[in-house]
Amino acid sequence: MRIASVLLPDAGSVRVGRVVDDVVHVLDASDSVLDLLRAGTLLEAGADALSARAVPLDSVRLLAPLQPPTVRDFVTFEEHVEGMRQLAGVPDAWYAAPAFYFSNPYATLGPADDVPMPPGSAVLDFELEVAAVIGRGGRDLTPEQGTAAIAGFTIMNDWSARDLQAAEMQVGLGPAKGKDTATTLGPWLVTADEFTDLDLALEARVDGRVVGTDRLSNMAWTFGDLVAYASRGTEVRPGDVLGSGTCGHGGCLGELWGRGASHDELPPLRPGSVVSLSVEGIGTLTSRVVPGVAPTPIPPASRRGSKASLLSPSDSNDAFLPPERAHR
Amino acid sequence: MRIASVLLPDAGSVRVGRVVDDVVHVLDASDSVLDLLRAGTLLEAGADALSARAVPLDSVRLLAPLQPPTVRDFVTFEEHVEGMRQLAGVPDAWYAAPAFYFSNPYATLGPADDVPMPPGSAVLDFELEVAAVIGRGGRDLTPEQGTAAIAGFTIMNDWSARDLQAAEMQVGLGPAKGKDTATTLGPWLVTADEFTDLDLALEARVDGRVVGTDRLSNMAWTFGDLVAYASRGTEVRPGDVLGSGTCGHGGCLGELWGRGASHDELPPLRPGSVVSLSVEGIGTLTSRVVPGVAPTPIPPASRRGSKASLLSPSDSNDAFLPPERAHR
Repeated sequence: MRIASVLLPDAGSVRVGRVVDDVVHVLDASDSVLDLLRAGTLLEAGADALSARAVPLDSVRLLAPLQPPTVRDFVTFEEHVEGMRQLAGVPDAWYAAPAFYFSNPYATLGPADDVPMPPGSAVLDFELEVAAVIGRGGRDLTPEQGTAAIAGFTIMNDWSARDLQAAEMQVGLGPAKGKDTATTLGPWLVTADEFTDLDLALEARVDGRVVGTDRLSNMAWTFGDLVAYASRGTEVRPGDVLGSGTCGHGGCLGELWGRGASHDELPPLRPGSVVSLSVEGIGTLTSRVVPGVAPTPIPPASRRGSKASLLSPSDSNDAFLPPERAHR
Repeated sequence: MRIASVLLPDAGSVRVGRVVDDVVHVLDASDSVLDLLRAGTLLEAGADALSARAVPLDSVRLLAPLQPPTVRDFVTFEEHVEGMRQLAGVPDAWYAAPAFYFSNPYATLGPADDVPMPPGSAVLDFELEVAAVIGRGGRDLTPEQGTAAIAGFTIMNDWSARDLQAAEMQVGLGPAKGKDTATTLGPWLVTADEFTDLDLALEARVDGRVVGTDRLSNMAWTFGDLVAYASRGTEVRPGDVLGSGTCGHGGCLGELWGRGASHDELPPLRPGSVVSLSVEGIGTLTSRVVPGVAPTPIPPASRRGSKASLLSPSDSNDAFLPPERAHR
């Protein structure tokens, strides 16, 4: 079943709806998708929804299917890594375990939301991913338990400010500001029972032109593996989002730039650009880029020398430091 | 004022308390510190607490002062970066902006919690940091607004599995699993009004032996700058934690190993190790390392070749790909 979060035109209230063809059956209760996941009653609510009032799908505004408590974004498509790192190659460590980073959950946007240019960025990119949404939390799960923990799937556009990302990743952290302004989820959550396998066709279009096509089965690990790895030594909780990572074969402009496409041929996204991501069995997520705000300035780094005199004179850890560092 | 989250011995209930010397005044209401921050009533509740019943501090179990919705960890001490990257040096990008990553909010532990060895790690380290806790949320804040947004400060031990971290950072993401099992906060939140400046003495001890001493004023940016940068193009929200990054001059073992201390001289933490972090004006956060669980295995990466036949035969983005990639 297709579960959406909808803003109703009448009262401006947000409700959970079940999408069937071109109508949405709207639940009366004000519980959010996240509330239903936490209560373990999403499927039950979805079944009940069929007897709830139906409104035309095009009369409501679709919001992100949920506001996730956390967003983990993985990197599971070898072709994406290869394209993004043309000179460096795919590091051995990539094959050892499904690497991920935590992304900003406050950046979550829905299918009807325009995407502002991130402050200070001139090189915006999209990333075509599929996101798994956790239904049942757990700790130190096996891959089988990880698969069973997934409530459903949605499309994820992991908007990427490549210029900000390149700068911060020189420090070896993140990315953070490179991914901080927008992550679009939608158009709805399709419950896991709808899929017999996950060999789904993926397609990305920019301004109507196809730039990427891949299949979800090219992930190097299953979503169950990702959930297991995410929960190792910690927890996954209901509503957590786990992104597949960007698919290959043009799942973002960065991969194609890495393989030699020029910015003239394939320009970075700019205000007015329209990106459509389609995933077989889920739907299409279309977003428009709009102007953003200028960065609010912060001062440059204070260099250490200016404050050395503030150090305590009794540095009792000098035994561990080389002579030029001790007794400063 | 010192605001703590306490587990009461009688009913096992969790309450907000105000610590005054060796007693804690316990609020009757069940609102958490996070609830009070969101309501904007933390200072009011803290003032009211003085007329609430007092129990001996040593009769309660101190929990993490709050369960933060998000944890951003910065890297603002130049000496730490220099020590951790002996060969590589401090990258220019480090000086350009305060780099950070999002860490796992589910890893939050309190001052009474033992710290399990992360699954699969044999090289555990501590990191001595000070964390700012957001009181008032906002978007695109100035540094001045960022300073005003801070409700208070607590001590943060950013436990780091150096072996896991080194592996995943070769992929250029995170760290994630290297920091996933434990981040200790405590012993309480000291409200921002208690500090006339933040030139605070910092000290780290392992098994009673001083290994690190620095001053918080050696941060290259102020916490207000960090909040401003964090909110650029997005939001900070009440309860968000922003870590200063590890202080220099032995704020973690990794810095000292980077400067030449051997594992024989300064061994990685192991079950039984006791780490005490002291911050002037806040207090001391002492944690004991205990054994953890073995990693639940996940399968190795599926190599791409095995699935190439699943690709759609009509790759309409071939125009952007070099010939050897097109028409696969």
